[in-house]
Amino acid sequence: MDNFKYYNPTKVLFGADTHLLVGEEVKKYADKILLHFGGGSIKSSGLYQQVTDSLKAAGVAYVELGGVQPNPRLSLVYEGIKLCKQENIRFILAVGGGSVIDSAKAIAMGVEFSGDVWDLYSGDKETDRALPVATILTIPAAGSECSSGSVISNESTGEKLAYGGDFIRPVFSILNPELCYTLPKYQMACGVSDMIAHAMERYFTNTPDVDYTDRILEASIRSIIHTAPLLLKNMQNYDAWCNIMWAGSMVHNGILGAGREEDWGSHDIEHQLSAVYDIAHGAGLSIIFPAWMRYVYGEHVNRFVQFAMRVWDVDLSFESPEAIILEGIRRMEAFFSSLGLPVRLSQLDIDETNFGMMAKRVTARGPVGRLEQLGEQDVLAIYRLAL
Amino acid sequence: MDNFKYYNPTKVLFGADTHLLVGEEVKKYADKILLHFGGGSIKSSGLYQQVTDSLKAAGVAYVELGGVQPNPRLSLVYEGIKLCKQENIRFILAVGGGSVIDSAKAIAMGVEFSGDVWDLYSGDKETDRALPVATILTIPAAGSECSSGSVISNESTGEKLAYGGDFIRPVFSILNPELCYTLPKYQMACGVSDMIAHAMERYFTNTPDVDYTDRILEASIRSIIHTAPLLLKNMQNYDAWCNIMWAGSMVHNGILGAGREEDWGSHDIEHQLSAVYDIAHGAGLSIIFPAWMRYVYGEHVNRFVQFAMRVWDVDLSFESPEAIILEGIRRMEAFFSSLGLPVRLSQLDIDETNFGMMAKRVTARGPVGRLEQLGEQDVLAIYRLAL
Repeated sequence: MDNFKYYNPTKVLFGADTHLLVGEEVKKYADKILLHFGGGSIKSSGLYQQVTDSLKAAGVAYVELGGVQPNPRLSLVYEGIKLCKQENIRFILAVGGGSVIDSAKAIAMGVEFSGDVWDLYSGDKETDRALPVATILTIPAAGSECSSGSVISNESTGEKLAYGGDFIRPVFSILNPELCYTLPKYQMACGVSDMIAHAMERYFTNTPDVDYTDRILEASIRSIIHTAPLLLKNMQNYDAWCNIMWAGSMVHNGILGAGREEDWGSHDIEHQLSAVYDIAHGAGLSIIFPAWMRYVYGEHVNRFVQFAMRVWDVDLSFESPEAIILEGIRRMEAFFSSLGLPVRLSQLDIDETNFGMMAKRVTARGPVGRLEQLGEQDVLAIYRLAL
Repeated sequence: MDNFKYYNPTKVLFGADTHLLVGEEVKKYADKILLHFGGGSIKSSGLYQQVTDSLKAAGVAYVELGGVQPNPRLSLVYEGIKLCKQENIRFILAVGGGSVIDSAKAIAMGVEFSGDVWDLYSGDKETDRALPVATILTIPAAGSECSSGSVISNESTGEKLAYGGDFIRPVFSILNPELCYTLPKYQMACGVSDMIAHAMERYFTNTPDVDYTDRILEASIRSIIHTAPLLLKNMQNYDAWCNIMWAGSMVHNGILGAGREEDWGSHDIEHQLSAVYDIAHGAGLSIIFPAWMRYVYGEHVNRFVQFAMRVWDVDLSFESPEAIILEGIRRMEAFFSSLGLPVRLSQLDIDETNFGMMAKRVTARGPVGRLEQLGEQDVLAIYRLAL
């Protein structure tokens, strides 16, 4: 196990009706805030009305900035920074999913940073200051509600990059599973795929002797696998949403990766797929992760056997560890398929036309992944395995 | 799953040599501190020297208060409060196990509380203020290094009571597994028993639909079971200590109980045992918990079957759920025995002489436990089952 530092001061308010507490919680920090959100869904669902009523009742003034899109854009971040400065706003409330929260985090850093906020994402500059951010989560998937990271897309360069630190963990996050009832099933499935990927990016590690975190990661994935089909049957299953929503936060709040080297190669490889073909991140992951596994397992047989047996209950003859591993991957793909997710690029009519360019872009800043460090040719091979 | 609030701002610094960072970490909060510890072991081990060197190097002045005993005493807490006030100290560093940390938490509350600190523990008064406390953990067991609670013994009334809140979670805790190398094996075993009990107090719940936390609790116990025998073989196994130390914090930092009603009946029943016979808390728990399980399982067959199967790998015929449950308890007892822990009161030459008085005391403030609310006769029956 590696040395580590863990610090997560996000206060979680979890359960039915907790979003009605938002006004009084915000009031502890600020009298005037930026209310940041995405499209119109929070208005049609009535959530916008409830949130603004709660803010007004607590005497909190708000300035609105909606319009966050999936893969949140740098241009809107700039707009938010300008707005906060103009209006002298010192607190941001994000109401939405990971994109809205990541956009809010970027604005929060940008307001406190003297230079161009993109220089943080591009790796040219650093900061450790940000406005406080709070969230009301409406899409369990990205885990940004308790995480230290954010991912922003720069429309002008075509880049999608991450930045963060403990200083941008939200000060509080409200997780009310009822707010998920109106999500489309496909979006639930994509969220589930993203959560499982967050656990797997931590699970596949070179760090030896990590029995405890191995087991709680396995338990996390098993619980998600157990619960997702319940939502497929009934998207208003409160307890199933509780499970999924909390698991989604736990697998990405950092505590399950404590003391382990993490991989993140599949995420990097997927980001290009989403960028070029505009497919949902979770759907890209359900395609890329199995391909990545087939590409790298050879040098890590014991770990992949453990994964197949403990997570997917594979119980084949030990004479062939490879058969155990491949059966695990097959079961994982069958699970994703049962949720309506793609597991092959060909299902999305994607051929190898752009693979060369994509592999080059993925590795433009050097190899990706840590279990195996993957160069351009490796990434190309993984895209091909995903066909 | 129940609604919950979770807030844990303790910064964890984990791994080899991390105790050498104590000076610079403390310096962020204070220039002068109370250095709180137990007996002479931190001096003989050299830890005291390293800690005070680090404090001096960082320019932190310290006033010492040693002498914390197991089951930390109220009288020393009073002394610490007086000392902090006299010396105008606004920060406490606890170096030791759960007793030292709990004593530090009590002092930290007492300094900021205008009345008698014992009134907080006795339930007569409340507070939400305390001096900041930090810890260097030397005995993984109680979990106090990341928890919101503390337990203090009042010598004059014979009571042992708990108080706390998120406001007394340590601001930082340093967990260096190497500091555990010199622990006696029996103390390691008692710590392991305490950790498993902390997980089980959360596991045995009436709250339905808690699949996620069920599974990470099961995983936690399994990992502890897997690791403890490695320490029995070699008390200087760094990776095994990493696992045990981190698991011990995780099972009591509150996150594994999120959204579940917890039990704590066995702890209450054990506290009397320790109070009357002065046996180690962990040794009391390895006796009481199996007895409690045999007493209550009848109304909670499914949960106890799940526990036996998922934690202890019991795979008997489903025709007799009771046989599965009892085999699970038997395996748990065999595990405790293998660590050198007692599982029956008779092993400690304790007979039923004091059972009546003890059962009365345990239930003096009303029934204990939540899975089943246990009155005086129930507690008496459990002591008898433990003979």
